[in-house]
Amino acid sequence: MRRLRILVIHGPNLNTLGKREPAIYGDVTLDEINSRLQGWAEALDCELMTFQSNHEGSLIDFAQTEAPTADGIVINPAGLTTTSVSLRDTLSATGLPIVEVHLSNIYAREAFRHPSLIAPICRGQVCGLGWRGYLAALDALAALLREG
Amino acid sequence: MRRLRILVIHGPNLNTLGKREPAIYGDVTLDEINSRLQGWAEALDCELMTFQSNHEGSLIDFAQTEAPTADGIVINPAGLTTTSVSLRDTLSATGLPIVEVHLSNIYAREAFRHPSLIAPICRGQVCGLGWRGYLAALDALAALLREG
Amino acid sequence: MRRLRILVIHGPNLNTLGKREPAIYGDVTLDEINSRLQGWAEALDCELMTFQSNHEGSLIDFAQTEAPTADGIVINPAGLTTTSVSLRDTLSATGLPIVEVHLSNIYAREAFRHPSLIAPICRGQVCGLGWRGYLAALDALAALLREG
Amino acid sequence: MRRLRILVIHGPNLNTLGKREPAIYGDVTLDEINSRLQGWAEALDCELMTFQSNHEGSLIDFAQTEAPTADGIVINPAGLTTTSVSLRDTLSATGLPIVEVHLSNIYAREAFRHPSLIAPICRGQVCGLGWRGYLAALDALAALLREG
Amino acid sequence: MRRLRILVIHGPNLNTLGKREPAIYGDVTLDEINSRLQGWAEALDCELMTFQSNHEGSLIDFAQTEAPTADGIVINPAGLTTTSVSLRDTLSATGLPIVEVHLSNIYAREAFRHPSLIAPICRGQVCGLGWRGYLAALDALAALLREG
Amino acid sequence: MRRLRILVIHGPNLNTLGKREPAIYGDVTLDEINSRLQGWAEALDCELMTFQSNHEGSLIDFAQTEAPTADGIVINPAGLTTTSVSLRDTLSATGLPIVEVHLSNIYAREAFRHPSLIAPICRGQVCGLGWRGYLAALDALAALLREG
Amino acid sequence: MRRLRILVIHGPNLNTLGKREPAIYGDVTLDEINSRLQGWAEALDCELMTFQSNHEGSLIDFAQTEAPTADGIVINPAGLTTTSVSLRDTLSATGLPIVEVHLSNIYAREAFRHPSLIAPICRGQVCGLGWRGYLAALDALAALLREG
Amino acid sequence: MRRLRILVIHGPNLNTLGKREPAIYGDVTLDEINSRLQGWAEALDCELMTFQSNHEGSLIDFAQTEAPTADGIVINPAGLTTTSVSLRDTLSATGLPIVEVHLSNIYAREAFRHPSLIAPICRGQVCGLGWRGYLAALDALAALLREG
Amino acid sequence: MRRLRILVIHGPNLNTLGKREPAIYGDVTLDEINSRLQGWAEALDCELMTFQSNHEGSLIDFAQTEAPTADGIVINPAGLTTTSVSLRDTLSATGLPIVEVHLSNIYAREAFRHPSLIAPICRGQVCGLGWRGYLAALDALAALLREG
Amino acid sequence: MRRLRILVIHGPNLNTLGKREPAIYGDVTLDEINSRLQGWAEALDCELMTFQSNHEGSLIDFAQTEAPTADGIVINPAGLTTTSVSLRDTLSATGLPIVEVHLSNIYAREAFRHPSLIAPICRGQVCGLGWRGYLAALDALAALLREG
Amino acid sequence: MRRLRILVIHGPNLNTLGKREPAIYGDVTLDEINSRLQGWAEALDCELMTFQSNHEGSLIDFAQTEAPTADGIVINPAGLTTTSVSLRDTLSATGLPIVEVHLSNIYAREAFRHPSLIAPICRGQVCGLGWRGYLAALDALAALLREG
Amino acid sequence: MRRLRILVIHGPNLNTLGKREPAIYGDVTLDEINSRLQGWAEALDCELMTFQSNHEGSLIDFAQTEAPTADGIVINPAGLTTTSVSLRDTLSATGLPIVEVHLSNIYAREAFRHPSLIAPICRGQVCGLGWRGYLAALDALAALLREG
Repeated sequence: MRRLRILVIHGPNLNTLGKREPAIYGDVTLDEINSRLQGWAEALDCELMTFQSNHEGSLIDFAQTEAPTADGIVINPAGLTTTSVSLRDTLSATGLPIVEVHLSNIYAREAFRHPSLIAPICRGQVCGLGWRGYLAALDALAALLREG
Repeated sequence: MRRLRILVIHGPNLNTLGKREPAIYGDVTLDEINSRLQGWAEALDCELMTFQSNHEGSLIDFAQTEAPTADGIVINPAGLTTTSVSLRDTLSATGLPIVEVHLSNIYAREAFRHPSLIAPICRGQVCGLGWRGYLAALDALAALLREG
Repeated sequence: MRRLRILVIHGPNLNTLGKREPAIYGDVTLDEINSRLQGWAEALDCELMTFQSNHEGSLIDFAQTEAPTADGIVINPAGLTTTSVSLRDTLSATGLPIVEVHLSNIYAREAFRHPSLIAPICRGQVCGLGWRGYLAALDALAALLREG
Repeated sequence: MRRLRILVIHGPNLNTLGKREPAIYGDVTLDEINSRLQGWAEALDCELMTFQSNHEGSLIDFAQTEAPTADGIVINPAGLTTTSVSLRDTLSATGLPIVEVHLSNIYAREAFRHPSLIAPICRGQVCGLGWRGYLAALDALAALLREG
Repeated sequence: MRRLRILVIHGPNLNTLGKREPAIYGDVTLDEINSRLQGWAEALDCELMTFQSNHEGSLIDFAQTEAPTADGIVINPAGLTTTSVSLRDTLSATGLPIVEVHLSNIYAREAFRHPSLIAPICRGQVCGLGWRGYLAALDALAALLREG
Repeated sequence: MRRLRILVIHGPNLNTLGKREPAIYGDVTLDEINSRLQGWAEALDCELMTFQSNHEGSLIDFAQTEAPTADGIVINPAGLTTTSVSLRDTLSATGLPIVEVHLSNIYAREAFRHPSLIAPICRGQVCGLGWRGYLAALDALAALLREG
Repeated sequence: MRRLRILVIHGPNLNTLGKREPAIYGDVTLDEINSRLQGWAEALDCELMTFQSNHEGSLIDFAQTEAPTADGIVINPAGLTTTSVSLRDTLSATGLPIVEVHLSNIYAREAFRHPSLIAPICRGQVCGLGWRGYLAALDALAALLREG
Repeated sequence: MRRLRILVIHGPNLNTLGKREPAIYGDVTLDEINSRLQGWAEALDCELMTFQSNHEGSLIDFAQTEAPTADGIVINPAGLTTTSVSLRDTLSATGLPIVEVHLSNIYAREAFRHPSLIAPICRGQVCGLGWRGYLAALDALAALLREG
Repeated sequence: MRRLRILVIHGPNLNTLGKREPAIYGDVTLDEINSRLQGWAEALDCELMTFQSNHEGSLIDFAQTEAPTADGIVINPAGLTTTSVSLRDTLSATGLPIVEVHLSNIYAREAFRHPSLIAPICRGQVCGLGWRGYLAALDALAALLREG
Repeated sequence: MRRLRILVIHGPNLNTLGKREPAIYGDVTLDEINSRLQGWAEALDCELMTFQSNHEGSLIDFAQTEAPTADGIVINPAGLTTTSVSLRDTLSATGLPIVEVHLSNIYAREAFRHPSLIAPICRGQVCGLGWRGYLAALDALAALLREG
Repeated sequence: MRRLRILVIHGPNLNTLGKREPAIYGDVTLDEINSRLQGWAEALDCELMTFQSNHEGSLIDFAQTEAPTADGIVINPAGLTTTSVSLRDTLSATGLPIVEVHLSNIYAREAFRHPSLIAPICRGQVCGLGWRGYLAALDALAALLREG
Repeated sequence: MRRLRILVIHGPNLNTLGKREPAIYGDVTLDEINSRLQGWAEALDCELMTFQSNHEGSLIDFAQTEAPTADGIVINPAGLTTTSVSLRDTLSATGLPIVEVHLSNIYAREAFRHPSLIAPICRGQVCGLGWRGYLAALDALAALLREG
């Protein structure tokens, strides 16, 4: 079984996870999420490459650079979800299977958070399951890659 | 650790799963999904009660009857997702944590499938991950129930 | 003065009235409402036929069957209010005067509850007055039937 | 049982009730409605203060002045229903329970009459029951005030 | 040939006509318009009753009081055109033929000025012809009244 | 020439055809329509299976069960036309050619009846031709099946 | 039985039928359709007058000229369906029963093809049945004219 | 006082005026209207050039050809009012003052007749005054041209 | 430095400021605000003329009368903000620089409060700063008038 | 290198180019544009066939007739851009590569000019570059045809 | 009285203030505004930290880093006002009171500038007052922080 | 003839041109496009300054810095086309003539790509012509600058 290489991309503001507004986003930090993901990835024989930025351009640079050697992407586009055509175009151009993650249930929040530009180019979306949503996304992505 | 009781509710047309349009919905039957869920549930020390119907009223009857002795709900409302205020009201009245599942990525399909009446009253939503989405939902629901 | 025959139709989820979410819907059960309606009906020299179902089809069957021998209808369409063209067509076809009742003030709730498909074919609508709304509806219906 | 003080406010054009367009609004005059309301109010041990004006400002002045010594409001905002943010703000600021009344079934009339600015701040709404709607509103308001 | 009695109603701000913004509304004052209308009316054997107010309520009071002895109405609802359901209801209740006048071409101005609540209950509308529009309206109204 | 097997599905309220509102729907009963269709079907060497229900779920059950041995479907979805995603999904999953029938011209009725969820998955639609529309639909369906 | 005179009007681009895009519109030419219609018409004792033009004005001229001596109209407005108020006004002014035909299922095509200006003034509409739709329309129109 | 040259342009279907649907459009023919306009024009020292066509292109040709020697335009665009960008562009390019006329009150008819593409480029609009509306338009146009 | 004359206009319901709903509007009364404004005005060498009314017409009368001798306007249109075309027209006709004030942050409240008819004709808008917003508006207005 | 045959189609009002409104459309006449295009075409070894009409039907006739022997189309649909479904259908049916040209920048003009019905069936669109836009379109079309 | 620490954040393009388009934005440079703010801040016993960037990500980084030691924020989000969900989330997560500033009156400009994503999470908004708006915002913010 | 200095700005993801999704964007790389543009520019006696970035802020920085010494701009805003108010403001503030380029025909793609924020401030737009569109834009821009 070939080892898979998965990109895990965290959008704007996720660097403050666990430190601010835990009532909405939980009290787990981004480092902890990445660390749990790494553990889970080992079990799935995946190599993870994680990246966070508050800069749309940096997220695009990262995806452009790393996608050619990756097998799939887990992304939480955060505030860019509904507005970034550029990020969508980057992700779509990778040709990789993608799973979108949101920590909170965006459909129970303000209406402007609902129409995702990213979702239509993804294989699936997981939202509202907190940090566990990342594990579920990774899990499913690995299975989809291995089993089709 | 207390054994949990979870309702797994499948909406209209899911009884034909695996038999029709496998290109969209996969080739796993509903029985197989239920069976895999049962296996997973044992590992999580959960008792599952699964139910499918093409009748909105029967789904409501089931949820009303079983919710008082249940701890959480995993539901794929299928074609009722965007139209059934009644099912939403039933689910909301249970007061239980709920995770919504869709086999396909509804956000990559027709626009009329996007606005879910069910999502706003759920803890989270999983879509586009095929039958694995059910496992992810069950997993997360059990964890949320045990760990808050 | 001829004795009147009035149908009182309760839509989905109203069977759980008084047991769930009393903060929104009050703590009176459907049986108690029906019983108070029966008492009031006697005073108005009306015969009541009450019916509840979570099945749109059963509500339609009931209305089709009973309307030919009835003089008027009091209906709380509940979750079917904004979505059931079929129920509207059934009610409209009866040719009877109808009063629509809602326990809660639907206009102070989510926007998707506002546009009623039923209201335009009714004589009137009573909402937000709790179980007393049924009495008001019955009262008005009887008066309209007797006095024009 | 404490005697209640209820304001009954009639909006623009209701002074011509019973004189014009009886096919839509009935042939009962406003004086007759007020008189029937007074009779009914006595039976309910309520003191009524009735007021009609074609001037939005006068309706606001009246409500501001009388609300501090009143227990509840029955209001037919008539043509101001869909347009007067000012009247809504006045009524909302009273902090009193309010029941909105419309003689005709506004939901069977032009679409511009449907979205009520007043309804969301009321306890309930009665429409289409003619002058009897006022009695139903008064009845329910008194009951709500006495029984909660 | 019976002498006709026509109401000419001028809405808010028309009292400042000719004094402000002549580039948009012309430099003829309301008194001059009324005076020219009176002259024209004599030629048509009509008695005119003119009225202007900045108060919606006063316009309604006037129309309610004078309509029973009038044969038709020429009205420039000005700023109330798109917002006053009350004025519409008053005018509609008169049962009289009405012609709506606007000095400027409202369809060449801001979009919020286009949807007139008054137009649908009128026989016709004249706009953009300046003060001459009043004469045209009076002319047509008289002809319609005399010739059907 | 192989004998064809066609399902004819009638949605909610069509069981009262010919008995109620003949001005809109005609005075022919559903039994008569089915009987005329049977006659016509014989001439076309088709076997018809007709079904009516007021229950969306029963219509879905029927279509799921019978479609595997059928060659095509004629359906009048009635009140479910604009709201039932579930019925659409069932019909679409059959993979059969379908012709939609409406007795009345839905495009000359209320706007909420216009956007059909069923039409986009059909081969064609016939509306406003009364009971003859069923014959036209059957005719065309048989021809399409035989001649492509 | 009186011989009927029916106008069959074909809108823009239908002259190229059968020659272009047969995948969408079929490979039957307009001449063949007219010829089949003539044959069918004889069987129904109808006289047909067929006309095609790419000019809206010519279609209007034709309808204005021929309608006074005709009994009914079958029309495929093609590209004018959603945009020609003029053609609608012409057809409506004829006072004749009209059946609208579309070769393809317009409801399965682009959204801008759905809202027909013509449909609301017709007796019925047939779409998606290819050239057979014309026969169905003629059939139904003749029956409606003879039997009411 | 210089003699004025005015174009009077009648859009599609106005050639049938007085012959069809007199309840809506009156029983005066287009010839009679043109004749009355000619009489009125003499009194105003205007030369009229009248033209009617059911062809948008012919109306454009006419306006392009005649506008350079004309002083103003009275136009009833009829069915082209809400749809013809081309006619709007032609009229706008003439640089002449234009008055739009509609025989019926378009604002009391179907909503699709309300948004005029022509009105924003006109000096004014007259609607609902029947054939007298043309006289009013001519009158006002002449006065505007002579007096500014 | 010339002394400036500023109108301060308070719309409907602002007379009850400080007495009702202090959680939203603060506990300062209108008299206190006017008094603080007077103090501030003295420091800025401005003469203030303050006015409050619940009557749209009275606000218009006041602005029409006082504007000719004033240099600028501070206005809190309150409930008339989104609905009064008449008040907008009055203010616009004054030709004076205007600053709009709202005590609460209207953009954090109901959506119907957002689209201000008044804002587009003002120099600026201050909202959400409580009674201090009036001082800021006066301050800026005086500076703009003196310094351009 | 095969000589190419290109149709250049000019829509309504373009015959007056250079004579009217030069501020918007430039002062070059249509003849001059055609002549410059012919010169350019020679250099590209293309044969041009140019056509202008104010009649939608004539444009359709021309395109239907000439397309079978042409290699590509340059079209400025002018006022038909946003409204002519018929012209779109004609162009689409040609199966030829098409480039749409607008002299002015339609996106900087009125909103009703933005949604082009023609653009989605074209290879590309050039707007705002004046008469040079035609050359750019021809240039690109020839290159696309020769180089793919 | 504790010294306050206030962040003053300037969005994209504000670095060119005073140099470009002074007719809209004034001729004061950003340095001058910051300098005047510093002077004013001293008088209010506030420490200011000012920052400008054309990079959304840098604005987010700055706010995330500095907010924990700040008492409030004055922000002019400029072009990010209507589009940056990310910046909104950052600001909202700070939990600090915020006042939004716009130099120009955005409500008198293009419609796409009106719906602010930032406003709903602010205490208030100041627009159209030029550079003085910053002083007003700072003033109010300091007062709110000190006096509640 | 003065040598012109033109900025050529490429938005996000254009750095991957020719490497990804050649079916949509062609197989020419950005370097090749720049190189062809440089060649063309020499022929036009223009100096080109080309720049690409995935960072909106960097694009803004570049335009702010280079515009003061440039004569015009050719820009492909790519994914920022419909969302970046900031980039629009930057470009608009340069006061330079701008031509917008899109490689693909955005009007034949998803609806969210149609409304360009950039187009209204440009002289023109070229789309769907692939890399040749840049040449056409440069060509036209140079001509406009030299010939007006």
